[in-house]
Amino acid sequence: MDLFGARRERARTALAELGADGLLITTLVNVRYLTGFSGSNGAFALGSDGSGTLFTDGRYGEQAAAECPGVDVVIARDLLAAAAESMSGSWAVETHTLSVDEHAALVEATNGVDLLPASRLVERLREVKDAAEIECLKRACAISVEALADLLTQPFAGRTERAVARDLEWRMFERGAEALAFETIVASGPNSAIPHHRPTDRAIEAGDLVKIDFGARVDGYHADCTRTFVVGPPADWQQEIHAAVQASQAAGVEALRTGVQVADVDHAARSVLEEAGWLTYFTTGVGHGVGLEIHEDPYIGVRNAGKLAACTTVTMEPGIYLPGRGGVRIEDTVLVGDTPQVLTPMTTDLLEIA
Amino acid sequence: MDLFGARRERARTALAELGADGLLITTLVNVRYLTGFSGSNGAFALGSDGSGTLFTDGRYGEQAAAECPGVDVVIARDLLAAAAESMSGSWAVETHTLSVDEHAALVEATNGVDLLPASRLVERLREVKDAAEIECLKRACAISVEALADLLTQPFAGRTERAVARDLEWRMFERGAEALAFETIVASGPNSAIPHHRPTDRAIEAGDLVKIDFGARVDGYHADCTRTFVVGPPADWQQEIHAAVQASQAAGVEALRTGVQVADVDHAARSVLEEAGWLTYFTTGVGHGVGLEIHEDPYIGVRNAGKLAACTTVTMEPGIYLPGRGGVRIEDTVLVGDTPQVLTPMTTDLLEIA
Repeated sequence: MDLFGARRERARTALAELGADGLLITTLVNVRYLTGFSGSNGAFALGSDGSGTLFTDGRYGEQAAAECPGVDVVIARDLLAAAAESMSGSWAVETHTLSVDEHAALVEATNGVDLLPASRLVERLREVKDAAEIECLKRACAISVEALADLLTQPFAGRTERAVARDLEWRMFERGAEALAFETIVASGPNSAIPHHRPTDRAIEAGDLVKIDFGARVDGYHADCTRTFVVGPPADWQQEIHAAVQASQAAGVEALRTGVQVADVDHAARSVLEEAGWLTYFTTGVGHGVGLEIHEDPYIGVRNAGKLAACTTVTMEPGIYLPGRGGVRIEDTVLVGDTPQVLTPMTTDLLEIA
Repeated sequence: MDLFGARRERARTALAELGADGLLITTLVNVRYLTGFSGSNGAFALGSDGSGTLFTDGRYGEQAAAECPGVDVVIARDLLAAAAESMSGSWAVETHTLSVDEHAALVEATNGVDLLPASRLVERLREVKDAAEIECLKRACAISVEALADLLTQPFAGRTERAVARDLEWRMFERGAEALAFETIVASGPNSAIPHHRPTDRAIEAGDLVKIDFGARVDGYHADCTRTFVVGPPADWQQEIHAAVQASQAAGVEALRTGVQVADVDHAARSVLEEAGWLTYFTTGVGHGVGLEIHEDPYIGVRNAGKLAACTTVTMEPGIYLPGRGGVRIEDTVLVGDTPQVLTPMTTDLLEIA
């Protein structure tokens, strides 16, 4: 059985637990996960008997046939209406992403089919990566850190945030990134205090903290990495917050072992900042799953129940943000295992750049 | 009144027609349109009394305050729950994008508030661009066509589709693009027959058709442009299909005048291909609105009722796709007016490239 066939089998097992006659996948990234289809419009119907039909539009006829050898492909204008024709009995649908209007249309088109919530069935399967996915993530992460290392050979002072961002992106593309994992953040000086800053024409100066959050995408899989540098010798306060974040991040990474409770991972990173008295200035989340989406299950938070299984990939990204002054974030993409494996290996020390 | 205040007033007028006490905007691009907020997580509550509150998370506190001077900003973890607190009576919600699960949570959190469908209220407002939007679109389009003109000074033969795509993208970034409007399509030889092809490592050869569909993004606004070239002298069949698409596209652009019926625009482009006997090989849509989204209302199709108002921006993009052989698409972003204005001006003739 091929890669996608194996994933569909796992989905079918989960479907059996719901007791439904089929599963209608309308979340595009879940369609891709189960079929390999990478177009921008598609739905997938998985019958409890193992049958699988991909619905897409005329633009993607050739592509779907090439990408999805094991499934039937139906070309249609209205994908939900086309899918409805093959549904009977009770079907699970993705109510977490299906819109109210789409659901109403489906109720009408299926005419008596019992529509059950599939909840995040496929997202839960996607948490644990198979070998092919880990390979893609490793490539995306390797491209990312190599590009960053290369960028550091150039001076920063006098260049704009935007220019540095474009430079880094170019180096990722040169190394084979198919796209950016997300819009690159280059945040300098006071801007580094803004967790999700968009690069501006501010020129980077001596004394600035420079926070760079970036990643490459390879075959649909996302890398996510952040490092914070200082232009010239660091001030005491910059060293202090950087050291606190570095210790917090290291503790968080250390916690990412098979079977750990999600809340314990959150605590591992957060408690270091708390003990150092900086927790007030940590305003974002500790981490999130990363894979076919840049943010996906599992989210690392105290209120999230559950354990992390082996081969789950998550980010670990504590930070300290001092409004008006500056901020530090350090982030790695990490593969959970008996020993945590950092997929974005690069020193987390506070590097002085030119 | 500022730009965004004026847009909120128009939304409030549309809201009054629904007879609701408020409008809850959960579609991110609509939040941006009404408030200027460009973060990745936000909701906006617009009261019929003119009050406006933006809900976002802790990452975006500083940014929201800076971007949205005329509205209250509330930082919350659960945006829907926070918004629910201020809702009473009857509120319109975006059922076309709100998921079934989110809607259920909102019903519970609002406890008795009557939730009405807002349908595509904000999307309809967004069809007609104001002066600031037209300025952004013009800049995005200008960057795009300048980058393409620049790309054409370099030889194509021997380079991969992927390398040419990265080269073009780099030229857009150099000219000030903040991002790509979408993933660049460079489709050569037989690949040009695939309407939405992703660039591969195929090396471009003499005799290839090379279809390039691309665009820059500026301040959130998208450009969309396609040209098809030939490497060296064209074969007869290449000239023939290119001429048919060129005539179809010109007829389509000519039709984009204030007050025209959408179905008539579709017919103008489609009938040229039909008369030339190529309609079977035109498998995509004639065009779509373009602005804060790369694909937005209005979609150009025979079954779409309604007229185009002045200052609507749409694409015009007929094509002919011969599976296994090659294809041609020509696309412009066009501003509807008494005279249609092509925002992506560049010859549509079949250029021979090296």
